Amino acid sequence: MAEQQRHRVVIVGGGFGGLFAARLLRRAPVQVTLIDRENYHLFQPLLYQLATGILSEGEVAPPIRHILRRQHNVDVEFATVTGFDLQNRTVTATRLDDSERRHPFDSLIVAAGAGQSYVGHDEFARYAPGMKTVDDALELRARIFGAFEMAESEYDDAARRAWLTFVVVGGGPTGVEIAGQIAELSRGGLKRNFRKVDPGAARVILCDGGKEILAGFGDRLSQKASNGLAKLGVEIRTGCTVTDVHALGVAVKAHDGSTEHIAARTKIWAAGVEASPLARLLADAGGASTDRAGRVEVLPDCSLPGHPDVFVVGDMMSLDRLPGVAEVAMQSGMHAANTIKRRIAGKQSVAFKYRDLGSMATISRFRAVVSFKGVKLSGFAGWLVWLFVHIAFLTGFKNRFAAMLHWTNTFLFSGRAERAITVRQAVGRVVIDEAGGQESLRIAPPQARP
Amino acid sequence: MAEQQRHRVVIVGGGFGGLFAARLLRRAPVQVTLIDRENYHLFQPLLYQLATGILSEGEVAPPIRHILRRQHNVDVEFATVTGFDLQNRTVTATRLDDSERRHPFDSLIVAAGAGQSYVGHDEFARYAPGMKTVDDALELRARIFGAFEMAESEYDDAARRAWLTFVVVGGGPTGVEIAGQIAELSRGGLKRNFRKVDPGAARVILCDGGKEILAGFGDRLSQKASNGLAKLGVEIRTGCTVTDVHALGVAVKAHDGSTEHIAARTKIWAAGVEASPLARLLADAGGASTDRAGRVEVLPDCSLPGHPDVFVVGDMMSLDRLPGVAEVAMQSGMHAANTIKRRIAGKQSVAFKYRDLGSMATISRFRAVVSFKGVKLSGFAGWLVWLFVHIAFLTGFKNRFAAMLHWTNTFLFSGRAERAITVRQAVGRVVIDEAGGQESLRIAPPQARP
Repeated sequence: MAEQQRHRVVIVGGGFGGLFAARLLRRAPVQVTLIDRENYHLFQPLLYQLATGILSEGEVAPPIRHILRRQHNVDVEFATVTGFDLQNRTVTATRLDDSERRHPFDSLIVAAGAGQSYVGHDEFARYAPGMKTVDDALELRARIFGAFEMAESEYDDAARRAWLTFVVVGGGPTGVEIAGQIAELSRGGLKRNFRKVDPGAARVILCDGGKEILAGFGDRLSQKASNGLAKLGVEIRTGCTVTDVHALGVAVKAHDGSTEHIAARTKIWAAGVEASPLARLLADAGGASTDRAGRVEVLPDCSLPGHPDVFVVGDMMSLDRLPGVAEVAMQSGMHAANTIKRRIAGKQSVAFKYRDLGSMATISRFRAVVSFKGVKLSGFAGWLVWLFVHIAFLTGFKNRFAAMLHWTNTFLFSGRAERAITVRQAVGRVVIDEAGGQESLRIAPPQARP
Repeated sequence: MAEQQRHRVVIVGGGFGGLFAARLLRRAPVQVTLIDRENYHLFQPLLYQLATGILSEGEVAPPIRHILRRQHNVDVEFATVTGFDLQNRTVTATRLDDSERRHPFDSLIVAAGAGQSYVGHDEFARYAPGMKTVDDALELRARIFGAFEMAESEYDDAARRAWLTFVVVGGGPTGVEIAGQIAELSRGGLKRNFRKVDPGAARVILCDGGKEILAGFGDRLSQKASNGLAKLGVEIRTGCTVTDVHALGVAVKAHDGSTEHIAARTKIWAAGVEASPLARLLADAGGASTDRAGRVEVLPDCSLPGHPDVFVVGDMMSLDRLPGVAEVAMQSGMHAANTIKRRIAGKQSVAFKYRDLGSMATISRFRAVVSFKGVKLSGFAGWLVWLFVHIAFLTGFKNRFAAMLHWTNTFLFSGRAERAITVRQAVGRVVIDEAGGQESLRIAPPQARP
């Protein structure tokens, strides 16, 4: 079969890096196998909207194979990569039923991304979920809307205030966006829903260890963002280190050395990432090094040293101190794919050059900050750019249309379409037995369900 | 406070019975507490659309307190009822943090509905989930879309066919609708998505123990439904009893006594319901009897014998052999609420009279069967009535609009908006270790997630 003689490209990961690499190979004389442990491509920049009830799973996470359905030279495998054999040029993937498959490759692109990092405090994870997967976002959604429910039926004032206090750790775009959205939904989206508590009285505290939030955006936008959040009622604490996280709250240390305990039932971790464990696995297999964030150190053309046909792209790649953003993943994924095409055509590989297309973060409805090649926009102008870019980049006409519908509902009417709390979404919810002071990780509700 | 001297009504359950009772008390001189263990009102007639990727959670399960936000005499409690004390007139509810609250009442309406019944074979539940809660539907969604994924990466022919075989047990409206939708999505919605398997080759088998499907609709509509499903490729087996369900398939017995094993990875249980365990709890507390389906036997005005202020409505109520449908729940809920209003006004209670507004079931896009007061509609005319009624009854303008958008996508373009499979949704997925033949209930994917 002619198919089998084609150059075989295996791509690990269907995020921005892997998906854009696959797309670029659309007309190349190659056969592509894209392996992901999820069946969906996650549009990560909108994950905070899933966590706050604006968009649904389908809108931020369309199936990878549906996106690539018209690209006939791509096979999509729903499996978890568990091994690399660079000598024999195979990738091992384990399917959901534990059966293993070996996928031979001529070129390999590894784009497995990054997960949340708790910088040595993995025990924080159960109390302060991160924002990396659809399950993370659905758990946060259950925790956030559940907190208002718990407050409503709480008789004790202090306990009620703890349910109405939300601490977001990390002042990058994700932290800023989720803090802004929690504040907005408490001020608008839950109007008239409660009888005993005023959801608008919720405290949202955004902690960041640095001198300012959105540090990468420059002083002016950082200040604009701070002002915008302050208008929404978000308390911003810069120079603030989180020293402990538990079921009932967090301990923080200010830069002057003073410490404080904040009683807060809902904590969200948006500080720091570390590369997928596949980075370590690949580095070990290929004799490469990893950096402090666990990313694989690559040559200027994104290839693994000594393995010119193996590429690492996106959040897993350590190169030129590039930031862990979607744009870097897309561009490096496309660069790797292009290099494969060039090699097949007998051309040399060239160094990857990142074209910085700027960054943006929404603050509230009608307000965003945008930084693009020295141009800094904020307020409504920034929001229009945010809206335009996100509609343009959302995958598929149908998702664009559905997202616009939900945005109309949210931005104009403060509505939140997705507020269902389910047992499984709330798995991992940490509750405390108030009588005994004993912590327990609750998996099922008090009573067995029929 | 004047509030506290008002007649206190406690409603247990925010389904059709409880919600319509609460709404009817809008202008009555009462204070209502509605307690539900979920934060959402489930629009059960569309649950099959959640399970097959057409609608999202938010569209079929809006928050109860949001629906009732403008009704100031209602408090919504998110808690699980764990006890009734009819002497002291209190209901005990346990919140998610295990703390208990006692809610005093002057009148009580219990409308906790019904769960799936496996008629003495609870061990079938793990292999053949039912269709009662949002979690059920999300698990089914993960299993259905996951089955096509597994088939795609399966090399063995027989194993692949088992992944592409779906058995639906129960030929009532729910069974008919889910069977039709699985057939439709396999024939249309997954087009071009797969490389190795043809999703359209999926077998959908609908088993029913009776002589015909949709027995309550009459012979003509039953025949129309059978023909419609057959056109979609659904295999209908009537007079067919399921004698065993396990990870790899089901054993069935035909009415002639012959037996067969059907290799099928995905099984859906839509046969039989039993009343919520709260029915037993209430009957014990009030000295009442329950029937074979666990429902509480009530007087003609829906009240508990000897307790004129305690009402049981909907699927939990045993009265006049009324069917377990949404209409009965709504009307009996409203009847109970009306009786409370009449009593406060010094009037006598009257017997509940069910006005049969007919029944309907969708077969495929553009086809439904409708039975209404002797008028029988099928095909496109039936579907138009189905569409009209469902748009009219969906709660909230926004949900109507969103549902119409998704229906346009599905009915005109065969699209499925919601196809994300997440680990937690698939919790409970039963897989089999093919090497060892050992069954295991998988909770996490093979590799720990970062």
